[in-house]
Amino acid sequence: MSKQKKLKAKLASGFRDRKGTELILKDRLIETIKRNFQLYGFEPLETPGFEVSENIGKFLPDEDRPMAGAFVFKDEKDWISLRYDLTAPLTRYVSENFDNLSKPFKRYQVGSVWRNEKPGPGRYREFTQIDADIVGTKNVSADADMCVLLADTLNKCGLDKNEYLIKASNRKLIQGLLEELKVMNDSKKLMVIRAADKLDRVDITGVKALLGKGRKDKSGDFTKGAGLTENQSEEIINFLKIDSFSKLGNLSSNPIFKEGINELSEIFELTKLSQFSDRIKFSPSVVRGIEYYTGAIFEANLLFKVKNKIGEEVEFGSVGGGGRYDDLVARFTKSAYPATGVSIGLDRLLYAIDQKKIEKVKNNNPVVICVFDKKKIPRYNKLLTLLRSSNINSEIYCGDGSLKAQMKYADKRNAPAVILYGDNEIKSGTVTIKNLKLGKEVSVDVKTREDWTSSKTAQITTKVENLVNEIKKLL
Amino acid sequence: MSKQKKLKAKLASGFRDRKGTELILKDRLIETIKRNFQLYGFEPLETPGFEVSENIGKFLPDEDRPMAGAFVFKDEKDWISLRYDLTAPLTRYVSENFDNLSKPFKRYQVGSVWRNEKPGPGRYREFTQIDADIVGTKNVSADADMCVLLADTLNKCGLDKNEYLIKASNRKLIQGLLEELKVMNDSKKLMVIRAADKLDRVDITGVKALLGKGRKDKSGDFTKGAGLTENQSEEIINFLKIDSFSKLGNLSSNPIFKEGINELSEIFELTKLSQFSDRIKFSPSVVRGIEYYTGAIFEANLLFKVKNKIGEEVEFGSVGGGGRYDDLVARFTKSAYPATGVSIGLDRLLYAIDQKKIEKVKNNNPVVICVFDKKKIPRYNKLLTLLRSSNINSEIYCGDGSLKAQMKYADKRNAPAVILYGDNEIKSGTVTIKNLKLGKEVSVDVKTREDWTSSKTAQITTKVENLVNEIKKLL
Repeated sequence: MSKQKKLKAKLASGFRDRKGTELILKDRLIETIKRNFQLYGFEPLETPGFEVSENIGKFLPDEDRPMAGAFVFKDEKDWISLRYDLTAPLTRYVSENFDNLSKPFKRYQVGSVWRNEKPGPGRYREFTQIDADIVGTKNVSADADMCVLLADTLNKCGLDKNEYLIKASNRKLIQGLLEELKVMNDSKKLMVIRAADKLDRVDITGVKALLGKGRKDKSGDFTKGAGLTENQSEEIINFLKIDSFSKLGNLSSNPIFKEGINELSEIFELTKLSQFSDRIKFSPSVVRGIEYYTGAIFEANLLFKVKNKIGEEVEFGSVGGGGRYDDLVARFTKSAYPATGVSIGLDRLLYAIDQKKIEKVKNNNPVVICVFDKKKIPRYNKLLTLLRSSNINSEIYCGDGSLKAQMKYADKRNAPAVILYGDNEIKSGTVTIKNLKLGKEVSVDVKTREDWTSSKTAQITTKVENLVNEIKKLL
Repeated sequence: MSKQKKLKAKLASGFRDRKGTELILKDRLIETIKRNFQLYGFEPLETPGFEVSENIGKFLPDEDRPMAGAFVFKDEKDWISLRYDLTAPLTRYVSENFDNLSKPFKRYQVGSVWRNEKPGPGRYREFTQIDADIVGTKNVSADADMCVLLADTLNKCGLDKNEYLIKASNRKLIQGLLEELKVMNDSKKLMVIRAADKLDRVDITGVKALLGKGRKDKSGDFTKGAGLTENQSEEIINFLKIDSFSKLGNLSSNPIFKEGINELSEIFELTKLSQFSDRIKFSPSVVRGIEYYTGAIFEANLLFKVKNKIGEEVEFGSVGGGGRYDDLVARFTKSAYPATGVSIGLDRLLYAIDQKKIEKVKNNNPVVICVFDKKKIPRYNKLLTLLRSSNINSEIYCGDGSLKAQMKYADKRNAPAVILYGDNEIKSGTVTIKNLKLGKEVSVDVKTREDWTSSKTAQITTKVENLVNEIKKLL
């Protein structure tokens, strides 16, 4: 193969690799979240990466993104798509397995989702979502559960109470307002909802423009507006500016609007029973851009500041959210099958927690046993067995390099320790342990065994029977 | 939405859902395997689902399967493919990050892979692989490590020593034989290798046919043969029939063949040092159908019988394997970058372990607190807090159903217990616990509270302060 033209190794555009402690932390977060979802009575489900395209439709928040959509593939009979979220596949699953499911059905799922979007800085086309949903009940206690679950999950992931907030609202509020304002056209309604959803990103002036004639962004791109009248816009803006739940009642007497208020009241009554009472608050700016929400909507926000790409301090913002979607399963079934759920964006949560250094990730790298002489491997192997049977990550160096290369290797691996078991040690029943955590800086210049002995690094020689204890001490 | 034509919910062809205890077991296996890979000094890596098609090529075992290949999408600039294994993406990663990696580089990865094949019974197009690889050394101790790692991993997954066997061979044996037999054409060589690889499936007569003119299978499909002469075929068959490592030397004096023997000798010397000495054995029938192997090859086999689709008892067979692939990274790099690795097919391993009922999976389903009266939810919530703070999976019923529906729900969920906290209990500071593990059969006919009390099921009424202990007892 080596004589062919060489390939250029590169990641596919919009994708990324992960490694080392970031991945250890990711695993731990997933485990913590799964465990908490189980604690709340959710059972696991795993649907495949592909779904029949027609089954999952295309319910995505931002239609205006270039190429926004799914990766679609022509199969023998059907068009099939990589899932773009975990909710649409759930509705397919529930409908297909209706008779065998508990009513209501509570499941969680962890998995990759893919969006066929134009990649940009920090905008990836594959990410991990963790969802919990309750399907088959219109009971708002299920919505309240979702809020408490979100708060408790962030808490268990290591965030302090002042570092997160679950914002809740109800899609019926804006639907009621729109009815009162005589905005009846479905696509116009959706444009209003999406305009309102952009409040965090484009500010109140931006939303005004998007509600009216349209908005030109910094790059000069123009987004068409919903075409509301001045008066209609103002009503929507007034709603978005409301700063307390108790003032909502004054805004409108529309029955749908009132229903939204009543549902929220019940939710807050229930969430007050939990220890996260003050972490779950009403916020009119929570609108959610996805069409299918029909009732309660929620968003999990991180309140601390992080540096963005250009070094500005910005609030971290959303790491997940969800809401009630009572009509989505009904695309398949005769009767309505109301549902509610939340989705956590694991990559964003991981990034936030990694930035905050909240969780200390243990050094999982192996203790490296150096190879002085290949013929002595049976002896090295005895040390290896001692370490591994004590559950200590460890290995005999398996490359072809010199002693110097072995030290470089241990350094690069960020190994906690190197074990030297040369002729002298073997004769005297001892073993030498070099603590790399302490002695990192020296190893680069080491060429021979003598260099080590003379270097003032954290190095001890001890009886073989003490090996495990000494290593445990330094880990 | 409900007035539109209803969609027919169905899984995409060749894919499957997983749920419940199977998924709990899957999680546990993945955790066990990851932990063991870390113990052996491997670090985690996660590459994306998509790769630039050209980068990963198409190194698949069975070219003769219809439509065999990857799911390929046209991106803005490149063709991109869903990965069909975890090895090809690793070579891309190593080449792209060469300077920052330890030499050698040891990583593990868990992930889904996709094959765009014609689906068939039990043949899925998405599955989970767990791989461990050592890249950057030709040291055969790395190959020996792989064999021990495979054996130890199966052991830690709960298999007895007599239930698995790691079969090892070396690609150089058959390469040496082919050289001696003057079979020089690359595609002919590959056909011989693939014919030999099919020994388990098509028997010795089938292999003979595939080495010669070709083979017609039961369905009448004809596979073209490698076109070897009678004499050439016989030599290959003789090799495949060899029943002990010590007899290999008599077969050929070809230098490549000898090299293969020597490498295997060294591997077996090293694996004898481990506690899995008798679990790692030479087997000439291990050939592996993938083109890129260059040296040691291994296969992890489960020895116990399982029933196949038509009720026959068959040996379970392979759950993974791997080998040395010294030229694969060199597709990108100027210098050779030898490597070796193993891949475990998690779905097959899961199926085997599930069948054997080796691992007892705990009931993770929640204790269900019944709702007699919505107004009493604050009271139910106190019980919920007691249970959850003791780490007991639990919930207040969140649906809209009657008491009967609530019992049906608890049954369907396979809940370990139901908690009744009615007016009488509240008055007397007690709580009633219905043990569903014992009392399953009765619940279907229960309509009222009185039905329960009169039914002879395992039901106790105890002080609220004993709730947690009583639940713990029955879990």
